[in-house]
Amino acid sequence: MHFKINKTTLIDALNISTKAISNKTTLPILSGVLIEAQGNQLNIIGNDLNLGIETVVEANIFEEGAVVVDGSLFTTIINKLPNAIVDIHYTDHMVNIVCDDIKFDLVGTPADEYPEIPTIEKQNTYTFNSKLLKNMIKQTLFAVSTDEARPILTGVLFKIKNNNLTLVALDGYRLAYKQAAIEKLIENTAVIPGKTLNELNKILNDDSQLEISFTDKHILFNVDHVKIISRLLEGDFINYEQIIPSNFKSEMIIDTNEFRHAIERALLLSIKSNKSSIKFEIDKRHLTIKSNSETGKMEEELKIKYNGEGLKIGFNPTYILDVLKVIDSEKIKINFNNNMSPAIIKGLGDDQYKYMVLPVRLSE
Amino acid sequence: MHFKINKTTLIDALNISTKAISNKTTLPILSGVLIEAQGNQLNIIGNDLNLGIETVVEANIFEEGAVVVDGSLFTTIINKLPNAIVDIHYTDHMVNIVCDDIKFDLVGTPADEYPEIPTIEKQNTYTFNSKLLKNMIKQTLFAVSTDEARPILTGVLFKIKNNNLTLVALDGYRLAYKQAAIEKLIENTAVIPGKTLNELNKILNDDSQLEISFTDKHILFNVDHVKIISRLLEGDFINYEQIIPSNFKSEMIIDTNEFRHAIERALLLSIKSNKSSIKFEIDKRHLTIKSNSETGKMEEELKIKYNGEGLKIGFNPTYILDVLKVIDSEKIKINFNNNMSPAIIKGLGDDQYKYMVLPVRLSE
Repeated sequence: MHFKINKTTLIDALNISTKAISNKTTLPILSGVLIEAQGNQLNIIGNDLNLGIETVVEANIFEEGAVVVDGSLFTTIINKLPNAIVDIHYTDHMVNIVCDDIKFDLVGTPADEYPEIPTIEKQNTYTFNSKLLKNMIKQTLFAVSTDEARPILTGVLFKIKNNNLTLVALDGYRLAYKQAAIEKLIENTAVIPGKTLNELNKILNDDSQLEISFTDKHILFNVDHVKIISRLLEGDFINYEQIIPSNFKSEMIIDTNEFRHAIERALLLSIKSNKSSIKFEIDKRHLTIKSNSETGKMEEELKIKYNGEGLKIGFNPTYILDVLKVIDSEKIKINFNNNMSPAIIKGLGDDQYKYMVLPVRLSE
Repeated sequence: MHFKINKTTLIDALNISTKAISNKTTLPILSGVLIEAQGNQLNIIGNDLNLGIETVVEANIFEEGAVVVDGSLFTTIINKLPNAIVDIHYTDHMVNIVCDDIKFDLVGTPADEYPEIPTIEKQNTYTFNSKLLKNMIKQTLFAVSTDEARPILTGVLFKIKNNNLTLVALDGYRLAYKQAAIEKLIENTAVIPGKTLNELNKILNDDSQLEISFTDKHILFNVDHVKIISRLLEGDFINYEQIIPSNFKSEMIIDTNEFRHAIERALLLSIKSNKSSIKFEIDKRHLTIKSNSETGKMEEELKIKYNGEGLKIGFNPTYILDVLKVIDSEKIKINFNNNMSPAIIKGLGDDQYKYMVLPVRLSE
């Protein structure tokens, strides 16, 4: 294998594909990046068996071939080269890198030892607005579970039905739900691993060309010159529609930024003491946030609009803060029933997004 | 104790004084910050028994007094308050913080349990140009030893003699020496802990008012409204003048930036393999840098001017890179004798600074 390529083109591709490489891999070859030179293009591939990322770039190819090199070492070396043409030659188990008066020789592994990424035919293919999807992922992904004991909850439900795309994530304590109208497409449902969507959102720009293809077991995101291929999570997603309440006894409206800053302050004491609950005391015109720990206590009063009976209810402040970071509306609407039932948080006037959070029992 | 103060004034002072607080303290009260309200000013003090930092700010004091509160918690709380007047009241073992509609209560500890910072009388007091001293510290401090087995080497020698200020740091493998002409002052010699100078340099601005006072065991830096009081290291400093060679067989001149980038590349392989030596092959017009490890090898050729016989010599690349980061000259001069003797690195045309580095034995 022998090719020449511009340093910046190569480093951009490496920075994308190596995102699929896991630090914790038990299979040594998976810490490598696969480089395939074919025709007039390079395929640069990272893979952790669940997630593969393939970036295609043009290069001046003198001899076709393929090799696997240590992903992080190769990337840092290319990154430290001057902005010039890089000449890369694989021969005799060594990858020879030349740029100006600089030479590196790295150990290369034959490409046939590298696990193949599944080929996804372009059937069941959908085109999406990438800005819309990026925001939908941002508003739901944070609510996935990190507990591997229930794998299905580590993914986001991705449902296409009746001219709507719906994303849902939940972890047993809170649930994030986002819906958006799309053009009429064939119905489809999949549960996509959280890690895949996290990497996708790093690569996705607001104006990326985005195409998604499904098989029973895999999903392919085609983003400009990048292919992200991921396993889907197996099993049935939670029947979330049943657990979201639709009738409420009271409604609170509050300024998003003021609320966020107050929750951030309330969190300071619970971080220090590892205790994670705060109390909301709500009356007609005020929300009083109270936090209490070994190191001290905090109390803050915020102006609100409130419709309903006075309420005292406890929450994990992190679960409240998480949603305040992803709602764009200037005001927040929260619906309650009582201090044992879940609350629903929405941006005021936005019915496409809702966040359900369970209260915590108050100690007194 | 009861006072009001502007939030930004308070947070600026806390950010400075809490730098003296160690995370690893075994004495719980030392994780606190001491706040003393007296007359119309606050003294805000952090202390780890070796180093104390006291910041003085004006405040509106209603009741004099003093208290110790958890330094990091108090600082993060003040930091998260809105830009407004903060009202702080210590009573009944609680520090009550009020700002707008926000209230915090933190546990306070009586100030009499807090270890006293030594009082340094203003005798043996020197005034220095703070920009000059800041740069002198930058050029020497990095060479101190981190090995507590020889405490004297964890400090920087600070010598005032014959209209000169000299700073010297060494760790057994390399030595950094910086001299500057100053107005005639009384002779004095001290060894200042590296940590103290590190904190001093974070606080020092190019135009700070700087006054230094010595006692036998302590040093006081008066920087604007901040006092930094530090223990001095006890014992005699190494007789460094004897170990710096003054006659050389060869001299190399090289572009600082090109040299630095090449060393950074050479380091990439040694970081990965934990092996820390690179080889210089020097002839009349070229320096060839070679690095060799299990993961691969690297070779790079740089243009130089060289006076002397061809030389092959090995170095720890980190020790070379460290000095290239602090030399401002566009070109570097390196003097050698042979591959067993120390080399001297200087900025071309700058005789006030020199860096001595020992070679490593080449494996072949």
